Amino acid sequence: MKVEGSWRRAIELGPDGAVIVLDQTALPHRVRWLRLADLGDAARAIRDMIVRGAPLIGATAAHGVALAVRAGIDLDDACRTLAATRPTAVNLRWALTAMRVLAELPAADRGDAALALAARICDDEVARCEAIGRHGVALLEALARGRGRPVRVLTHCNAGWLATVDWGTALAPIYRAHEAGVPIEVWVDETRPRNQGLLTAWELAQHGVPHTVIADNAGGHLMQHGQVDACIVGTDRTTSGGDVCNKIGTYLKALAAHDTGVPFYVAAPSPSIDWTIARGGDIPIEERAAAEVRRIAGVRDGAVTEIDLVPATTRVANPAFDVTPARLVTALITERGTCAASRDGLAALFPEHAPPPEPA
Amino acid sequence: MKVEGSWRRAIELGPDGAVIVLDQTALPHRVRWLRLADLGDAARAIRDMIVRGAPLIGATAAHGVALAVRAGIDLDDACRTLAATRPTAVNLRWALTAMRVLAELPAADRGDAALALAARICDDEVARCEAIGRHGVALLEALARGRGRPVRVLTHCNAGWLATVDWGTALAPIYRAHEAGVPIEVWVDETRPRNQGLLTAWELAQHGVPHTVIADNAGGHLMQHGQVDACIVGTDRTTSGGDVCNKIGTYLKALAAHDTGVPFYVAAPSPSIDWTIARGGDIPIEERAAAEVRRIAGVRDGAVTEIDLVPATTRVANPAFDVTPARLVTALITERGTCAASRDGLAALFPEHAPPPEPA
Repeated sequence: MKVEGSWRRAIELGPDGAVIVLDQTALPHRVRWLRLADLGDAARAIRDMIVRGAPLIGATAAHGVALAVRAGIDLDDACRTLAATRPTAVNLRWALTAMRVLAELPAADRGDAALALAARICDDEVARCEAIGRHGVALLEALARGRGRPVRVLTHCNAGWLATVDWGTALAPIYRAHEAGVPIEVWVDETRPRNQGLLTAWELAQHGVPHTVIADNAGGHLMQHGQVDACIVGTDRTTSGGDVCNKIGTYLKALAAHDTGVPFYVAAPSPSIDWTIARGGDIPIEERAAAEVRRIAGVRDGAVTEIDLVPATTRVANPAFDVTPARLVTALITERGTCAASRDGLAALFPEHAPPPEPA
Repeated sequence: MKVEGSWRRAIELGPDGAVIVLDQTALPHRVRWLRLADLGDAARAIRDMIVRGAPLIGATAAHGVALAVRAGIDLDDACRTLAATRPTAVNLRWALTAMRVLAELPAADRGDAALALAARICDDEVARCEAIGRHGVALLEALARGRGRPVRVLTHCNAGWLATVDWGTALAPIYRAHEAGVPIEVWVDETRPRNQGLLTAWELAQHGVPHTVIADNAGGHLMQHGQVDACIVGTDRTTSGGDVCNKIGTYLKALAAHDTGVPFYVAAPSPSIDWTIARGGDIPIEERAAAEVRRIAGVRDGAVTEIDLVPATTRVANPAFDVTPARLVTALITERGTCAASRDGLAALFPEHAPPPEPA
């Protein structure tokens, strides 16, 4: 999508073969493109959340493998290094599994093949997001019909193009709607503790989509007062039964949407679907560093500055994700279309993953 | 309760007749007691949230009237000045109405009477909070029975002694339980945008009650995983039907408690009950300054420092309260006892306010 007026992707190849990514730890305060020259740079970018968002983590891992293989590093070693960077991310494992097909090639051919495969993983990612946008925009167009004001969509965290490679997942229908001239406004949850909502606000501002930042606490009140026409969020992991593991706080917004009759949509590209897990309660939840709650960065006198919010003597807990049960999800928006958040709904769109029928 | 080892109140009288309050804008980073010498100081303290919390606002307003009357300022003028400081606070109006009885006294007697009345309003406040603690602790003791671990209570915002004069409302049962040796731990919601949860953490730390600060987004996940045995929150305004208007985000926690079977208690001293409003949807909600979301204070290099979180060009909305419908409230804890959050529940405890029976 657009950055400072130009169309960019969140991960690109530089002319010298290095990988170029936007440093998301500097946003929204600074636009800084970083060069990932080798496996170590790629692993660090994932671990330190310079890149974040399940699909972009997968894309960066794929390019990390390509950088490693081209530098003569053993494929298994590279995959092990990258797999250790973020334990929860299902796309990371998915991308590394995809890259392992390189093992079947003669060593001399692996460098070029790795680069081509990483590029294809990125292009496939973009194609999936584009398709999610195409399917999701129909839902927004239906909500816009006959309304004398813009459609108001609430989103949590950042499931935009910064989290993918382009378009985004939850934001793809919003960008599509905006491009198609559907009047749309976005309520952007701040998304404590890491405030990824500010990445969403930055994205939307760069692309010209009207939006308003709110505290995470405010969404329920806005829904009670008819100020939200739909919620759309992303997912880090979707179970085969339609439960959704996403950024901490998603469950609370889903409850409010359910209580107030607001449709709650989850943009779920197929690599986010974990066909091996049926119940969201079985997903291990990453507990992240207390420092994320304790400290916060912002701008003071033009410089990015970190301050301590919580005294060092105070105990802090920081679960990073929660699970929204399928019963609270109005529909999943996948690259193959929209479906009920259920085993049957998903199986209809992805029959190749559907469990075999029970023996008679 | 205890501050730096001594028992203090959140509002006290100094030896020279000035009013002494804790500056809550400096907490949790600095303990600073401020002297309110006149009506202007008192009005400023309320408006700038140096004092906050519905009961403490009422107590400060009463003392503000006393300072004004003793300085020869007209009673009506003083009440008007103070009433304008915070439009939503029902306790503010309640305290000012109580102080208006001074109009019935000869002018020469009003000064001493005003001081005595303000002191009594404070003492009554403390007595109400003590009683809420006494009624509420029974609920916590019941939850503690047979459990092999501490009772875990989640609270939102600050409804502790900082928000009242002593004991607090939501925290009174917790302090009582702690004093009585009931093992108890508190999950403290950060409570964006003003982070009053850090006041709660500070209070609890000063008094030695174990606690853990969490992002507002985390409570639902903790409830899903059996980590919360009860929620207790305060209320800024309670309707005659039992709906509860409290700090923004309370509704989301009540939904999660309801969904997961966790009891959700609201500590509601009678001055918070607005007998003129039956439905929470009729309560006007204060929209506060965008700067509360945009900027945040913390500590850097030992100094309290403010940073900008949200770029100045980004639109922000900041509704300050939300309404939790009575159906999500397990019980109200009032100074007269515990009751159902309903018209009948409240009428049984406060028959003097109960509407007359319908004519046969």
